[in-house]
Amino acid sequence: MAEGFTRVLGIDPGLRLTGYGVVDLHDGTLEPTLVEGGVIRLDAKQPMEHRLLQLRNELSELIAQVKPDRMAVEQLYAHYAHPRTAILMGHARGVILLCGTAAGLPTEHLAATEIKKSLTGNGHATKEQMQLSIQAQCRLAEPPSPPDVADAIAIALCHARRIATG
Amino acid sequence: MAEGFTRVLGIDPGLRLTGYGVVDLHDGTLEPTLVEGGVIRLDAKQPMEHRLLQLRNELSELIAQVKPDRMAVEQLYAHYAHPRTAILMGHARGVILLCGTAAGLPTEHLAATEIKKSLTGNGHATKEQMQLSIQAQCRLAEPPSPPDVADAIAIALCHARRIATG
Repeated sequence: MAEGFTRVLGIDPGLRLTGYGVVDLHDGTLEPTLVEGGVIRLDAKQPMEHRLLQLRNELSELIAQVKPDRMAVEQLYAHYAHPRTAILMGHARGVILLCGTAAGLPTEHLAATEIKKSLTGNGHATKEQMQLSIQAQCRLAEPPSPPDVADAIAIALCHARRIATG
Repeated sequence: MAEGFTRVLGIDPGLRLTGYGVVDLHDGTLEPTLVEGGVIRLDAKQPMEHRLLQLRNELSELIAQVKPDRMAVEQLYAHYAHPRTAILMGHARGVILLCGTAAGLPTEHLAATEIKKSLTGNGHATKEQMQLSIQAQCRLAEPPSPPDVADAIAIALCHARRIATG
């Protein structure tokens, strides 16, 4: 762990876009600060196995650059309106968990409703509400876009606040 | 590709047991021969991310030892009686596809019904029927056990026969 703060990498997994958000929780403070956020865009024309390799390569590179202390990822869905999508997402999520663990990061799994409730007060907030909430809380000029970035920052914030309140 | 034959690695993905089977198709022949089969047993008491790391490590080691030319994996389910199981399996499958692609192996996805039909003549064969069929076709003293081994050998045979018949 870096001295003086804990750095959390939040990930919103996907086979087209994987969002990421990085926040720091400074020792003795309760509110994490945003370091950066972005997306890993996978080439949707490539077969799944090539996208997974690209995801592994880009996420490993990100972890090496950002040097987080911990990783947080959205939990498996409890409900499955779109099982095929959820299974495909499982492939990306498996590779993401592997990358984090291979890099020695402890990993937390957070329920989507808990993340939304923690950020907006509403466990069923829309993507737009999440974007606006992240914009306000991180004092950004614009809402993070695409929504995958806002979701990933939300996951990181939620996990860092849990650590803060111990 | 090794000279004189094509080596196929078949994989039956799982987060508890991942079966594997290795067959060789010698040039100019139509019927592949069994090289070996087995299972990678993951520690079910460990959190998923640790099991995925173990799976990556053991499968990468197997690929380095066996030096296959191609990999074949069962296709995603078309029906989802157990979506949670299928999503968990997706995590293992994602790591397996990653390992194969990272090692430069072209990967084929085969439908479960096609594999079963090719081996037994019945697209809905039971696990036991698959084990007996593999025992007979590979002239083994006993049926391969657990069934995950038989399924993985079946996947490898099915893919190798497809190559043989062009």
